[in-house]
Amino acid sequence: MKLKLVIEYHGAEFSGWQFQPGQRTVESVLAETLTVYFKSQAKKLGVELERPVTLTASGRTDSGVHARGQVVNLRWPEHFEFDQYRMLAALNGIAPRDLGVRAAELVPDSFDARMAPHVKCYRYTLQLRTFRGPMMADRAWHVFFPLDIAAMVLAARQFAGTHDFKSFQSADCHAKTTVRTVVASELTRVDDQTVVFSVQGKGFLKNMVRTLVGTLVEVGRGKIAPEEMGNLIEAKDRTKAGPRAPAHGLCLEWVHYL
Amino acid sequence: MKLKLVIEYHGAEFSGWQFQPGQRTVESVLAETLTVYFKSQAKKLGVELERPVTLTASGRTDSGVHARGQVVNLRWPEHFEFDQYRMLAALNGIAPRDLGVRAAELVPDSFDARMAPHVKCYRYTLQLRTFRGPMMADRAWHVFFPLDIAAMVLAARQFAGTHDFKSFQSADCHAKTTVRTVVASELTRVDDQTVVFSVQGKGFLKNMVRTLVGTLVEVGRGKIAPEEMGNLIEAKDRTKAGPRAPAHGLCLEWVHYL
Repeated sequence: MKLKLVIEYHGAEFSGWQFQPGQRTVESVLAETLTVYFKSQAKKLGVELERPVTLTASGRTDSGVHARGQVVNLRWPEHFEFDQYRMLAALNGIAPRDLGVRAAELVPDSFDARMAPHVKCYRYTLQLRTFRGPMMADRAWHVFFPLDIAAMVLAARQFAGTHDFKSFQSADCHAKTTVRTVVASELTRVDDQTVVFSVQGKGFLKNMVRTLVGTLVEVGRGKIAPEEMGNLIEAKDRTKAGPRAPAHGLCLEWVHYL
Repeated sequence: MKLKLVIEYHGAEFSGWQFQPGQRTVESVLAETLTVYFKSQAKKLGVELERPVTLTASGRTDSGVHARGQVVNLRWPEHFEFDQYRMLAALNGIAPRDLGVRAAELVPDSFDARMAPHVKCYRYTLQLRTFRGPMMADRAWHVFFPLDIAAMVLAARQFAGTHDFKSFQSADCHAKTTVRTVVASELTRVDDQTVVFSVQGKGFLKNMVRTLVGTLVEVGRGKIAPEEMGNLIEAKDRTKAGPRAPAHGLCLEWVHYL
């Protein structure tokens, strides 16, 4: 059996998901948390933990990116008893305050959070005001110049569909194919100083969501017309798209397995 | 002339508003920020700053409490030129990321942020879920037990009006009179895990808003009936009200001068 966890983290003080020696990453803090828990259970059962905890996430998140519904799997230690409520209570007690475990279930060994077909939803928050706002400082990109929101709404919708997103591929992304399916893509004004871009897809290129956001902001500034979005995608040329938006506006909302 | 500022702060890393030796408080960090700015201006003018910066706020906030619209006044140095945009740009550049200045204007010497008649609005956020959530950890009170929201909505409305709020007075509050006028008091469910209590009044006793929230949560747990709220107020007995809710769910939204 494997254990499937839905986890939540505030990304500000993590150096991203992936383990790196000497860095505080979500992967290493979660592995430490689980190890403390499993050791306590092993002690009760009078057994030794056979192997260190190794984690597989639905995907990596960059330094500063948040998650409300990241999905992770790991091997469930043999003979251990599974009690969802007690385990969640223990894990949330052990984990530091910027990491939480929302749900846990046992799944067949065939489950793989990364490889199993899934749809992921990301939200990106823009804070529109002349001067930065402390309450949203590490959760939204502060944009101080005026934006044409209507043009951004039109442009955002055009990302939906199956496209070659080569124009939004980072130089350090080595994906075999750059074709991806975006199942929903909407920009919404939440209040007079908040705009949210919500995008769902069956997979994204490295930094793709942040580059989509950077491109939408270029549309909002009038540097790219919303009608140009189709041509921009078809150009398959990274230099046509906008810059990569900062990490701290991004949140992985949920992962739904098909 | 005096300078009136509207400031915003994320309270997690401040030991409240008021200056205390050796502590990082909003008052001391804001005074330092203003001093750096005024010194730079004095240098340009070739003058000396006559006096240290002293601040008057609409009221103190406790350690952990946030503000989106706290109002502060201070003496405007003689002969200084006032340019709102440039000053805001400079102050927001100098201030640390958890403190911001939203607006600035020159006002007559008669203005006093604390004594001038005003209405204040506070918002208190409750996060309702079984396990704590990292994204709201320092901005909402995590309540893990079920609450009867409809009963809380009914109870919250009964705080509106001019009442003797002695039942909600902290032991260390030495206000001469405990009569206060609450002009609006509403509890609202924002989404499936967020409830917000919004209260506006012409002045509040020390910790009064947090005690109102603690009392509403007792109503939500079924320990106090919503119909009892009138009697609870009339009892003028602190032991009848609920406990004080934690500071970090509270935010001073705005102060409006009459």
